[in-house]
Amino acid sequence: MSARGRKKDSGIPQGVVSRLPVYYRYLLELEEQGETRVSSAQLGEGLDFTAAQVRSDLSFFGSFGQQGYGYNVSDLLKQVRNILGLNRVYSMILIGAGNLGKAIASYENFKHMGFKIQAIFDVDTLLLGNHHAGCVIQPVWYLEEYVQKYPTDIAIIATPSSASQEVCDIVVRNGVASIWNFSPVHLNVPDHVLVEHMHLTDSLLRLSFRLNEKWRAEESS
Amino acid sequence: MSARGRKKDSGIPQGVVSRLPVYYRYLLELEEQGETRVSSAQLGEGLDFTAAQVRSDLSFFGSFGQQGYGYNVSDLLKQVRNILGLNRVYSMILIGAGNLGKAIASYENFKHMGFKIQAIFDVDTLLLGNHHAGCVIQPVWYLEEYVQKYPTDIAIIATPSSASQEVCDIVVRNGVASIWNFSPVHLNVPDHVLVEHMHLTDSLLRLSFRLNEKWRAEESS
Repeated sequence: MSARGRKKDSGIPQGVVSRLPVYYRYLLELEEQGETRVSSAQLGEGLDFTAAQVRSDLSFFGSFGQQGYGYNVSDLLKQVRNILGLNRVYSMILIGAGNLGKAIASYENFKHMGFKIQAIFDVDTLLLGNHHAGCVIQPVWYLEEYVQKYPTDIAIIATPSSASQEVCDIVVRNGVASIWNFSPVHLNVPDHVLVEHMHLTDSLLRLSFRLNEKWRAEESS
Repeated sequence: MSARGRKKDSGIPQGVVSRLPVYYRYLLELEEQGETRVSSAQLGEGLDFTAAQVRSDLSFFGSFGQQGYGYNVSDLLKQVRNILGLNRVYSMILIGAGNLGKAIASYENFKHMGFKIQAIFDVDTLLLGNHHAGCVIQPVWYLEEYVQKYPTDIAIIATPSSASQEVCDIVVRNGVASIWNFSPVHLNVPDHVLVEHMHLTDSLLRLSFRLNEKWRAEESS
């Protein structure tokens, strides 16, 4: 399962990896605001980490702030961008053109970062030939031929749960190295294939936790 | 912003909070597989944490494994469920019935956990009166009246970015305490309102990081 059993090949702890996108978003905002430098204390305050945590996290990437200066925002952003692999373009395919699939394909943020959906597949014959987000929706029975023909970095699976393993098997046996899985089931893949499971529920559970924490605090005060 | 500046009211570190849903999902799987007990080493292996990390995390909730026995799966699951606030029902409303909104409303996993969408609002007059996931889609100009009349725990915002702050202001000024934000913009809310921002991109960036890490490893071997 994606959230478990991840190999720590680079020696970078999972916690640091999971915080990287958060640093990225924050640095992007600072740059947009015209900030040129930032201290570990400011980064920490903005992100709800301690300054020591920030320094420790950033040291994994060989980035060290300067005493009395801090970090150069655009240098640090460039570095985080490179580490996240945002210095190249990714070819993606989307399987499943229901509401979720369509929402993913329409999500503007990915495109600007270099993630391009090249083809969309669906089993629903009523959708076939329709256009969405600049792609023609193709029959899923063309999927195997497509991935044999066109190098694909990431397959996005947004099918109903019952179909996701089958779809996964097709792309994996044709050399797709990574899967972004939106279906709420565990996918079985060989060790060399990466699966990132998008857990919508985790975010909602963090919210319900915080809401209960708030209610408990209000009751006891 | 939701990912930043969170108050640590309960004294439970953010890292532990963010791992709670992961423990929850894993324990649920163990229970479904008929497992009755689990050691911190097994939990750690399944979740890619050290056994010490697991013991430390669980101790925040007053849960201590027994030497030579470990944890009772159903007891621990019950406890995590309570901490996450899954022992009650949440009334939610959804604003925005585009592809993303519809996908959220159709997501089966929430309902089983007690999160019920009671009403759906949209500005698109073509959608009005349609049914989706058991709710009638209502005009967004009924939103204020609705939240005044019906207690609402969580407002889900799935509108275009340009509309999300306005919608947020309406629900906040009528006492909605928490917002699950799917629009890719920062929402300004008073301190007492909780915002959980659903960052689809973070998950994709973790995948691109891991993919690049894999490519670098392959190149250097």
